[in-house]
Parts: sequence; C-alpha cells; structure tokens
Amino acid sequence: MNKLSSGLIGLGALAGVTPALALEQVLIDTDKPAQNWSIDSKQLGIETDKPFSITVRTLHGGRQEGVSLIDIDNGSMRITVVPTRGMNVLRAVAGDVKLGWDSPVDEVVNPAFIELNSRNGLGWLEGFNELVTRCGYEWIGHPGLDNGELLTLHGRASNIPASKVTLSIDEKPPYTIRLKGELKEKAFKKVDFAITTELATDPGSLRFTLNDTLTNEGDYSQEYQVLYHNNFGPPLLGQGSRFVAPLKQVSPFNEKARAELSSWQDYRGPTEGYDETVYNLVPYGDDQGNTLAVLHNAAGDLGIAVDFNTNQLPVFSLWKNTDTKGQGYVTGLEPGTSFSYNRSLQRPLNLVPTIGPKEQRNFQVGFSLLPKKENIEAALKKIDEIQAGRGIEVKEAPLVKLDKN
Amino acid sequence: MNKLSSGLIGLGALAGVTPALALEQVLIDTDKPAQNWSIDSKQLGIETDKPFSITVRTLHGGRQEGVSLIDIDNGSMRITVVPTRGMNVLRAVAGDVKLGWDSPVDEVVNPAFIELNSRNGLGWLEGFNELVTRCGYEWIGHPGLDNGELLTLHGRASNIPASKVTLSIDEKPPYTIRLKGELKEKAFKKVDFAITTELATDPGSLRFTLNDTLTNEGDYSQEYQVLYHNNFGPPLLGQGSRFVAPLKQVSPFNEKARAELSSWQDYRGPTEGYDETVYNLVPYGDDQGNTLAVLHNAAGDLGIAVDFNTNQLPVFSLWKNTDTKGQGYVTGLEPGTSFSYNRSLQRPLNLVPTIGPKEQRNFQVGFSLLPKKENIEAALKKIDEIQAGRGIEVKEAPLVKLDKN
Amino acid sequence: MNKLSSGLIGLGALAGVTPALALEQVLIDTDKPAQNWSIDSKQLGIETDKPFSITVRTLHGGRQEGVSLIDIDNGSMRITVVPTRGMNVLRAVAGDVKLGWDSPVDEVVNPAFIELNSRNGLGWLEGFNELVTRCGYEWIGHPGLDNGELLTLHGRASNIPASKVTLSIDEKPPYTIRLKGELKEKAFKKVDFAITTELATDPGSLRFTLNDTLTNEGDYSQEYQVLYHNNFGPPLLGQGSRFVAPLKQVSPFNEKARAELSSWQDYRGPTEGYDETVYNLVPYGDDQGNTLAVLHNAAGDLGIAVDFNTNQLPVFSLWKNTDTKGQGYVTGLEPGTSFSYNRSLQRPLNLVPTIGPKEQRNFQVGFSLLPKKENIEAALKKIDEIQAGRGIEVKEAPLVKLDKN
Repeated sequence: MNKLSSGLIGLGALAGVTPALALEQVLIDTDKPAQNWSIDSKQLGIETDKPFSITVRTLHGGRQEGVSLIDIDNGSMRITVVPTRGMNVLRAVAGDVKLGWDSPVDEVVNPAFIELNSRNGLGWLEGFNELVTRCGYEWIGHPGLDNGELLTLHGRASNIPASKVTLSIDEKPPYTIRLKGELKEKAFKKVDFAITTELATDPGSLRFTLNDTLTNEGDYSQEYQVLYHNNFGPPLLGQGSRFVAPLKQVSPFNEKARAELSSWQDYRGPTEGYDETVYNLVPYGDDQGNTLAVLHNAAGDLGIAVDFNTNQLPVFSLWKNTDTKGQGYVTGLEPGTSFSYNRSLQRPLNLVPTIGPKEQRNFQVGFSLLPKKENIEAALKKIDEIQAGRGIEVKEAPLVKLDKN
Repeated sequence: MNKLSSGLIGLGALAGVTPALALEQVLIDTDKPAQNWSIDSKQLGIETDKPFSITVRTLHGGRQEGVSLIDIDNGSMRITVVPTRGMNVLRAVAGDVKLGWDSPVDEVVNPAFIELNSRNGLGWLEGFNELVTRCGYEWIGHPGLDNGELLTLHGRASNIPASKVTLSIDEKPPYTIRLKGELKEKAFKKVDFAITTELATDPGSLRFTLNDTLTNEGDYSQEYQVLYHNNFGPPLLGQGSRFVAPLKQVSPFNEKARAELSSWQDYRGPTEGYDETVYNLVPYGDDQGNTLAVLHNAAGDLGIAVDFNTNQLPVFSLWKNTDTKGQGYVTGLEPGTSFSYNRSLQRPLNLVPTIGPKEQRNFQVGFSLLPKKENIEAALKKIDEIQAGRGIEVKEAPLVKLDKN
Repeated sequence: MNKLSSGLIGLGALAGVTPALALEQVLIDTDKPAQNWSIDSKQLGIETDKPFSITVRTLHGGRQEGVSLIDIDNGSMRITVVPTRGMNVLRAVAGDVKLGWDSPVDEVVNPAFIELNSRNGLGWLEGFNELVTRCGYEWIGHPGLDNGELLTLHGRASNIPASKVTLSIDEKPPYTIRLKGELKEKAFKKVDFAITTELATDPGSLRFTLNDTLTNEGDYSQEYQVLYHNNFGPPLLGQGSRFVAPLKQVSPFNEKARAELSSWQDYRGPTEGYDETVYNLVPYGDDQGNTLAVLHNAAGDLGIAVDFNTNQLPVFSLWKNTDTKGQGYVTGLEPGTSFSYNRSLQRPLNLVPTIGPKEQRNFQVGFSLLPKKENIEAALKKIDEIQAGRGIEVKEAPLVKLDKN
C-alpha cells in the first residue's frame, strides 16, 4: 500500500480517510483534461493473483482526434471504455476471446465530427462500433418524426462526452475497480437528464457490470427510453451459435424477421445480402426480476451471459446482423425499456415510460464471459429455472405494422 | 508599472509606445491558443480602490471540452466571458448578487458538440445559459422556413468561437479594462460578416458595456438581424418584480401573451406549467435615441438597467419565462433590430434591415447593476423623462398571426 | 546526410534500411498529435539548387481552432496542405503568383464546427476556400434528395480529417517530397471507403501532383463519385483569361450558362451580379487517356495546366464564378467522374460509377504553373495534338432539365 507513484494518494494509507478505497483518482474534470496516465496493482501495493492496471490515453488524427480511452486490465480481461462517447465499452478482451465486434467504422469517432441529423437521422451509424453502446435517454429507436420532430437513431447518449470521470479501487479484496462517468443530456425547455454511469470489475474476473442511474433533474415528468446495445461478433458469434433466454413472448420486428421466425434462436454464418433480422422479446425474470440471456457458440464451449433486471429493463431486442464480416457480422443482445421502433410507434405499446421530477431510474447490466462448457451449462440451467416450464408465446405478426421493412 | 510577470509588456512603461494603454495582451490568435493566464492590478503597478484581475482558463470534460473562459474581476464585479461561444457573457457576480440565471444547461457547451439544425432548428437550446447571448447576425428569431431554407433559432453568433481575443487596460484612471473578440460569420455566396465585439468595464464599477460592430465585408447588400438576449434570474427576478421602460407601443407576441396583457410589466414567482410569455415593445429614446429598460425586485432595492440606443436597436422583446426554478426561472430584456418571430414573418413588419457592402452597424448595450433604492429611483426618473408624459399604445392583438402559439 | 536535428532519423544514412528515402516521418497518427515541427534540406544534408523545407503548424481561435497546416516549400513554390480538411491544398505560392483564390471564408475551418446539413445541405460553403477541394467519395454534386435522403453539397471528403499523415523525401535526386494522408469515409451499413491521398513535388519545381487511391473496403459494390474542385483566382484569372482543353463535347450546365454558350471559353473580369456559369465538358485524352486543361491570362504569359486521365476522370466541370472579388472571383477546373448535378440526376447520364468490394480506383491530377509564354504555347500545342483536328460537339441544351437554375 505504499509504492505509489508521485502525485497519487493511496487513500487506504491515510488513517480515517475513506478507508474503503485504495485509490480514488479523478481522471477528467472541469479543470482536468484527460491525460496519458497509468496505475497498476504493484504501484498500489495490492497483491492479487494476476496484476491489474488502468491506463488513460488519447487518440489523434482523423475523426478520432481528441478521443480518450481508458483501458482497465483486470489481469484476466482488458476492458476499454470511451469517456468521449458516453462511457461506452469499446471492447473487452480476455486472452484470444474478444467481446465486441469489427465494425467498418474502425475509428473511435469524436462526437464533434458527427451530425446525428445527417442521413435522415442515421448519422449515429458513422460512429457505431462498440461492445456496449448506450442508447437513450430522451429517446431510442429508429429515426423518424415524432410529434413533428425528427428523432435521430437511438438518441444522443453515445455522442455525449462524459463530464467527470473517476477511478476508484477498493482497499480490500476483491479490490473492485470502479470507473464512473457522468453524462449530461440537457437542452433548455426540452430535457434535463443526468446519467451517472459506473463500470465495475474485480481483478482476475471474466465479468464486468454496468450500474447506471438516470436522474431527471428537471421539474417536470419526462418521457425517457433506454436500451443497451450490446454487440458481439466472433468468436462468440458464428454459424450455429445460439441465443437462449427465459421468455414470455417473442415476435418478429418486421415482415423480414417474420419469414425466419422458426429459427429465431439460431445464427447463420456470415451471409451475403442478409442485412439483419430483429426479434422483440419479453423476458421472464425471477422473483426479483433478475434474469439473463446467453449467446454461445456452436460447440457450446464459449459464450456470454448478459444479466439484467426486468423491472428496470422489461423488454429485449435480439439483433441478428449476420451479414458478411466486412459489412459487420454481429448480434445485439439488447435489454431496454423499449424495442427499436421509433418512439412514436412505441407509445401505443406502453414502452415509453416517464420519469418524474427528481426521480431516478437505475439500470444494471452484467457481462460474464463463459469460457467453458460447464459455465454455459450452468447459465442455461439458470435460464431453465427462471422459465420454470412456462411456454413462450410466439407472435407471428410484428407488434407494429411498418410502412417499410 | 513595473511589477510585471515575465513575458508581459507593460506598454505604459515604454516611452512613446501606445501610451494610452497599461497593457495590451493578445489572449487568443491564429498562432496562440487560449492558455491559463492571469494578470492583476498589482502586477501592472496600478493602484485602484479595489484590486482587479483578469484570468483565462479552459474547461474540460463533457460537452464543454476546450471551452475558454475569461474572468474579469474589476474589484466589484466578476464578469465571465466565453470566447468559444461568441464572446457571450456567462454571468456577472457582484457580492451575493448574480446577473445571469440558472439554466438546466449547466455546462458551457462547445459549439463543436451542437447541431443547430437538430430538434427542427432548436439545437441552440442545448447551449443556452448565458447572461448575454448574442443572437444574429444573418438572422434571429424562431426556427422555420424562410424562402425554403430552415433558419435555426436565433442564428449562429453564439456558436461561433472568437477568432482573435485581445485584452487591454488603459494607462490612466479609470483604467478601463477592455476585452475584444472577433467573430466571423461567413459562407461562400451566402454571408460575409465580421463582428468586432468589445466588453468594457472600469475597476470598482458595477457596470459593463458592450460595444459591437457588424461589418458587411461582402460586395452585396445583405439582410441582417441582431438581438441581445440579456437574461436575468433571481435575485433580480422574483414574485412582484417589475419591468419599466419608456415605451411607444406594447403588444403581445402571441395569443398566450395576449391573455396576460394587463399585467405585462409584472412578474410572477416561479410558476409550474407557465412556460413563457413574450411582449413586443417599441421603446422611446431621448433626442439621441438613448434609452434604458429597468428590471427591479419587489422591494425596489435591487435592479438592473439595460441601456441602448433606439437608432441601433429599435425594438425590444420582453421574455417572461417565469416557470419553475428547475425549468429555468428567467426574464429576457432583449433590445434588437427585430422581434423574435421567424425572419419570414418580420419582413412585413419592416424589421429585417439590410446592410450595404462594406457598411458597418454599431450596437452598444450597457448593463448597470442598481444596488440600492436610490439607484432604481434615479433610473425610473430617467425613464419618466424620456417617456415625457406620452401614452403607451397597447395593441391587443399580436402583430403577427401565428399558426402555433 | 548527417546534419539531422535531434530525434530525426535520416534513413538514407542507415545502411540497408529503406535506402530509397532520405526521410520518412509520421506527422500525425493515432498516438501522435500534430505538433509544430519543421525540417529543411540543410538539416537533411541534401544539396539542391534551392533549399526546401517542410513545416507543420496548428491554427487557433475561431472556427479554425485545432486545424493543422503543412507547408511544403520546395524552393520555388510553397504548397499548403490541410490535413484536418481532407488533405485539401489550401494554396500554392510561387513568387508573386498565387494558385488558389480569395474566398470570403478566410478561416481554415475545422469540420467540427461545420454542419454539412445546414442551409438545406449547403453547410459545406462555410469552409470552402481551397485551391484543391476534394469532393466525394460517396457522392458529389448539388444538394438534394436522392432516394429520399438529403445529399449535402459535394460530399464529405473535405470535412474528414486525415487519420495518418506521413512525409517522405527521396534519398536521390530529384529528392521528391511526398506527403501522404489517409481518409476514412465510413458509416455502418452505408459506406466503407478508405482514401489514400498523396501530394508529390520536386525541389525547385513549379509542379505538384496528387495521387489518390479510393479503396472500397466493404464487401459490397458501392456507388461513388469524385470531383477535384480546383480553384483559381487572380492573377491567372482576369478579364480576357481563356480556358483551353481537348474536347469531345461541351454543354451548358443550365439555362443561365446556355445564354453565354458562345463565349464559354472566355472569362469576364469581376462582374457584379454575375454569380456563376458552369459548363459540362467531355475531354479527349491521348492513347493512354492522358489529357490536360489550361487556364491562361489575357496576355498569354501566365497560366496553369491541370493534367489528368480520362479513364480515371472522364468528365470535367468548368465553373466560371466571375462575380466581384469580394464575393469570390474564381474559376474551377474540375475533372471528375461526374458533373455537378445531384447524384439522382447523374444516374441517367451514366455518371455514377460503382466500385466493387475491395476494388481500388486511382486518381492522378497534376498542377503545372506555366510562368512564361513558351510554357503556355507548349501546353496549347499538346492540347492541339490531343484534339487532333476533331471537332467539338456543342450541345445547346443542358444535359439535365433542372427545375431551378
């Protein structure tokens, strides 16, 4: 607890001062620009099975000029967070397994260079390449007019730079590493949201969790929507990969998805001209609403479990973008308050919740890499237990009749 | 005149070189980025009743990344200017009195992160939080189509970073402090405006003035509009606060304002669901066109006088946004060339002036804090003198028939 | 080859290491921000008739905050490249001759401050002021709807900052100086283009060449368009200046140009109210498709030759913007894949080519200053040889019937 690099304060070393933390370091703030910086477990005098480190760096050139990245290497998994893009998780790499995907967008694009309103509201696509892309909070969903206003694809959250970013490390085992970032989604007369995001992971673990709190700082009730666009490519995704979750209902997003409804849980390999199919799912949770969704490979020996709470995130979009690798071979496991229709189409579905003045909404999403057959079997068993023998209602027709599929 | 920090040149100390200035310092220029910097009266060897200082700093994180602020503390009032946002005045604080207001937008937003065209032309609202927000110069007013082109709310001036910023301090009493910044509002074939802005204040004073010059650098006559969106919240604004000005005419902006026409000079306290009412005023000036408008609190012992010239700024919008504090409890005292209708609606009112090639227009606006009853009484007396017993024409109907109020 | 400034490596000095280069220096990259830097022939130990130098600097203030410029002074001509704006060539100055023009836009505008979608898709005009402005690559042409999507003026290339910029200098005479920059024009599901740009010039020369390669990195065929918007003002352009090229066909862009068809090769002096006329040209090339276009002054003793290849760039727009100097007195010599109509109007003309997956297209454009009568005569002779006595088909009617001229 004493080999600190100059300028760092090992809080645990100071008697009586926030004794629960070994480190609390502001990385970005009003008076503190993001700067190249790193710390590791050795410097902190923390002994763990595998040493961990956190690194801050800034990207230059192209449309990524000025973008900050924070790499949290917990010893088993290196998780890369993008403060400049809504604290999104760019990727998480454990050995030769990468959580995330290969988007044609290979820069980490600074929102300063994006016009969300371009391409008829599809400007968001010019920056989309993360493992976890936050969608919200004023709205999510496809672009289109709602009350005469063009809502751009999936809202603004991913294009809001975090205004204060803080790293903390617990003083005691498991020495949990926490990275907090604050987002402000504000416009006079329109919206007054503050979002506190937190990513937590334990040294040596193959898991990280997001713990986000939306606060309506305004004096009026406000509609909101949130969706975690969690995106996975190979090696988790491949021909014969399979999606499993405890479900009350499944329905196709549109007519195209309806045509493949019988195989909605199964994945194709990269398929030329496939584009995408999307399924709207209503998950079951346990008594507390806790639930999970699993994606695993064909061999059943590598997978991911995404856990969340149906009281917070009641619906789920399964995005199957099994087009060619170059086009972006990827699937989205997307718990949310809402499906991916334009907001105007979700009000009749009661999927546009409101948040009262000063109210808060908490959203917790966990990501566990399942590296072995037994991990997957355990996760599937948990799913079975939540399903508890209940049938899945399969709706043949999309919930919404779209003009264009 | 000799205790200068290294690198600074006290011009007054150099015989024959611009003897009128104690300091002339370029703060931002093509080859000079904004950098943390400060100077004070002591360093300059200037003795005033109250010491003054000027500080330059840069904000980081969130949507305010890279925004520069210049604080001019004249000893009695600390005035904060935002070069990155059109040399707007963020706030002015004198003791426990703040000129300005609390917008839900609590960052000072870098224009790089704003799409003025978003929200159907209301993107401007994502950065609106200043005491003085410059509106113009190509157009001002509500968003909407004019000749088939979407004009965004209140023009671009506030989202243009100043291209050269210079601080100067007079060598002799009252040692006037001047901050100049240049704005370029240019687009090939569309507009060729240069705006020189100046903020001046004297050490120890409760007053500052803006002295702006618009130059049409183009070879063609061009329409222009300008409006000083001067915004005040508590403690000046409160239940029973009152607005007074010498006036020729008052009319409601729209049907909603018409319903409260009888109490147009009086303010409500924070009122849930109130939104805003706006009144269109035509002020009287004195022989030279000089005039003023006063806002004072219910007790009549704290107020502000905004002075301007009706030859430069012939009309005035009174914006009464007495909604809840969280929504933004604020009133705007807004002299301008025009009201706040879309430009297309102001041509018939003859409120879209033109500026010939190479012509200039000067706009001077003064802000005097009125800290005592006698200051307010003196200001009201001046208003009375200008009014000179003439009646105010009260138009019941809005000047413009709007489809939507 | 040995007087290197510290930190630089004269590659030629290292036996066996890239022996063809005297210098290879990355100026901007993911981990390397643009920084003030310079090198000259003396430092490199290279002896040329005229010493050369390359300088990197960054602009500050206004809408040019953070824009990088690279000046290549080859001893005879100083060429200024803007990495932040698509590797455009801002200007090239040889003695008292400037290639380029004086736009009302006198800042070099950072794309972060431009909304291409503003002004109904004319936002591009807020940054337009270069000698060479790259247009493309997803589309070029006038703004307007194509398949229901607003295409903004002349595409995005000029508003994409280069993501990796490298300077190299050949080890052997003529010690060619090369500046490479990479552009990424990417959007998930929409476009996956990479463009490698290169500008090359030899010390002491009055010529530079562009050598650009567009790669479709995607898995699908894609439409593309490219146009080199090469812009020249005085002293090349003036009353009586003349345009000459070997041509198969000429037609007026619109009805306004049709009215002046008889004098399409001749230039007016600055003309109030003129705005612009545009002519669509189809050039002849030699056996290899190589061709050139010449603009020369009235005296015929100063000109420019723009050479290109008709297999790469089959059509040519002649933009005659001979309005007043203040408005922008300029002509564009613009070889391209396409004319300047909206993309939707060029498909019927077969001027919207496609590029297959992983395919490349090369575009080479050379710029030779013609400082003397004999240079111009030689260029005109070359044009004559390519024309080879064939007649020019003059089409009276525009190829496209526009609603609005």
